[in-house]
Amino acid sequence: MHYLICSGMLERSIATPAAIVDLERIEANTSRMSDKMIRLGVKLRPHVKTHKTVEGARLQVRGHFGGITVSTLAEARHYAKAGFRDIAYAVPVPIPRLEEMAELSRSLVALHLLIDQETTFREMEACARAKQLEFSAYLKVDCGYHRAGVDPERDESIDLARRIRDSSHVSFQGILTHAGHSYYGKNQGEIRSVADQERSVMVKFAERLRSVGVSPPEVSIGSTPTMAVTESLEGVTEARPGNYIFFDRFQSTVGSCSTENVAFSVLTTILGHYRSRGELLIDAGALALSKDEGPTHVEPRCGYGVVTDVAGREVFRHLRVYSLSQEHGKIAGAGAADFEALPVGARLRILPNHSCLAAALFDRYYVLRNEQLVDEWIPVRGW
Amino acid sequence: MHYLICSGMLERSIATPAAIVDLERIEANTSRMSDKMIRLGVKLRPHVKTHKTVEGARLQVRGHFGGITVSTLAEARHYAKAGFRDIAYAVPVPIPRLEEMAELSRSLVALHLLIDQETTFREMEACARAKQLEFSAYLKVDCGYHRAGVDPERDESIDLARRIRDSSHVSFQGILTHAGHSYYGKNQGEIRSVADQERSVMVKFAERLRSVGVSPPEVSIGSTPTMAVTESLEGVTEARPGNYIFFDRFQSTVGSCSTENVAFSVLTTILGHYRSRGELLIDAGALALSKDEGPTHVEPRCGYGVVTDVAGREVFRHLRVYSLSQEHGKIAGAGAADFEALPVGARLRILPNHSCLAAALFDRYYVLRNEQLVDEWIPVRGW
Repeated sequence: MHYLICSGMLERSIATPAAIVDLERIEANTSRMSDKMIRLGVKLRPHVKTHKTVEGARLQVRGHFGGITVSTLAEARHYAKAGFRDIAYAVPVPIPRLEEMAELSRSLVALHLLIDQETTFREMEACARAKQLEFSAYLKVDCGYHRAGVDPERDESIDLARRIRDSSHVSFQGILTHAGHSYYGKNQGEIRSVADQERSVMVKFAERLRSVGVSPPEVSIGSTPTMAVTESLEGVTEARPGNYIFFDRFQSTVGSCSTENVAFSVLTTILGHYRSRGELLIDAGALALSKDEGPTHVEPRCGYGVVTDVAGREVFRHLRVYSLSQEHGKIAGAGAADFEALPVGARLRILPNHSCLAAALFDRYYVLRNEQLVDEWIPVRGW
Repeated sequence: MHYLICSGMLERSIATPAAIVDLERIEANTSRMSDKMIRLGVKLRPHVKTHKTVEGARLQVRGHFGGITVSTLAEARHYAKAGFRDIAYAVPVPIPRLEEMAELSRSLVALHLLIDQETTFREMEACARAKQLEFSAYLKVDCGYHRAGVDPERDESIDLARRIRDSSHVSFQGILTHAGHSYYGKNQGEIRSVADQERSVMVKFAERLRSVGVSPPEVSIGSTPTMAVTESLEGVTEARPGNYIFFDRFQSTVGSCSTENVAFSVLTTILGHYRSRGELLIDAGALALSKDEGPTHVEPRCGYGVVTDVAGREVFRHLRVYSLSQEHGKIAGAGAADFEALPVGARLRILPNHSCLAAALFDRYYVLRNEQLVDEWIPVRGW
């Protein structure tokens, strides 16, 4: 599908609220990360949960081995069907869904699961035995985020790695972590410290495993902020950033990118002028932008997104999306010039705080190149 | 579809995260509101945006005239197709979508739109003239919420009402408001003040309109908190609450209902135990519960939902869903007894802070009666 739409037409032809992705920015973002990971000597296994589309994932794996990371079994099935053959499902295994994972792993070269619980490991072994197959699993490690993962300082963690390695029903894929606490960083310097920690905890744990004869095939790390700032991945074999394909307001605030790199935005229509309180009402509410609070640790009053003109070029820093209800967004800070330049019925674009959560609210993305609509991408939904 | 599932089976048969609705509670909630509106002498035009299903709307309109309120054009089209004939689209008209509204209004007995802007009124007239049809519109009034609506104190508002009444292209349906600021109330007393304001502002404005010969056919008000507490709707003709079909954690905290009335919950699986920090990891993250902050004005540390057992009966007040990422939820406050009673792989249910935003994240709801799965409802999505 390739058809030409000039900027003025774009304003009218797409019903709002709508998800817009900028293909040139995506290509630049994915190339930059791909090249950097090659330069730093690691395989890129990009996370695809930010966009959940086949087209986006194909751009992300360019120049690498083709493996991807997913956050749901629905994504895993979708990408398997589209021809992806090496998939890491990067959420600790939900035991009641093991049979689905067994089914899916038969259709793939590799479906890698995450273990950080004894119980889960035992249930996986039992399921694999019953189904006469072998699961593949990473041992999930906590490098300081404290969301999931085994404590690399504890002997039990070494024991669990050994038992996975020794299992005849679970193949040991290596060790994996995610430095989600990089999102608490206020700037590149703070994020660099987290990146150092993410790498060094894993390298040290890998060494400890090797010293007891349990060599991890892969040492897998990655978040977009840490991969954006790091300049060394020595001792690491694989990186799994994901958000960098789109980036967002959060990432641009903490220094992973600039506003000009953000490739995802929400097209919205101005529904009303409320001059006495300097407000615009827009049709992008909580179901279009998500209620993610954004980088409040850096900008306490950041609101729910960055307001730009309809082309996504001019940033209106003085306008603040300060309140969302289900289908309404309230923008404060409008003055006489804004009411003149932005009439009722005109369009704006909003760069949401968190593109992963906003993108998941849409059934399709309108894909632009040079402000022309060149494609529509359909993300997979559900679990 | 009617099949029996015992509670133990339910734990295993539905893949998580999943949206669960309790039909007995819905029937009680909808009957209670329907009866109350009859008792207070007003028509009920329920808002259906909370659930977006045909089945739910049919329960809501029981005992009333069958009119409904929607928040998107996708909902309007969906309900029109299902046989609903009188629909109010309760968001100020987005001008670029007027042609779609014109198209839709031809297939309905009545599609009522909202006007609070001069520009929008002029564009509606132009569109209706071009399409040779008549739109129907409420004048949207601001009763103190300050999201949308004309100021009832200003003469311009009277003028706009008169011009709608006099238009040969737009039929005057009356005046309409929504006291969304009822959600800022901390208890029934504070919400009762907002309910009084919502009613009295509208009754006074209607009187003023009548005094200048612009009699509003309908005086339409309503939010779930105000309709839950009010005991007089004198001067009002129509009420439009919506959330009451499900209720949620927010409504139970501010006193619109009790926890036992909440009919929407998210079934989730425990993915991990993290004993050193007293935490459980669950597979309900921001894409299952939404990041709505909930009633922080009453409970500052309320987290992202109320934790119950798998049957939705026992409430675990000491467990707090304190952090959500895309597909992970973190529950704090677990002690030795919890780790014993709630093993890895077991299920819980979470009552989300805001059922409208959480329900919109799911493609289907599992409908239970007496803990038996009796139906699946498919909500409409998008705009």
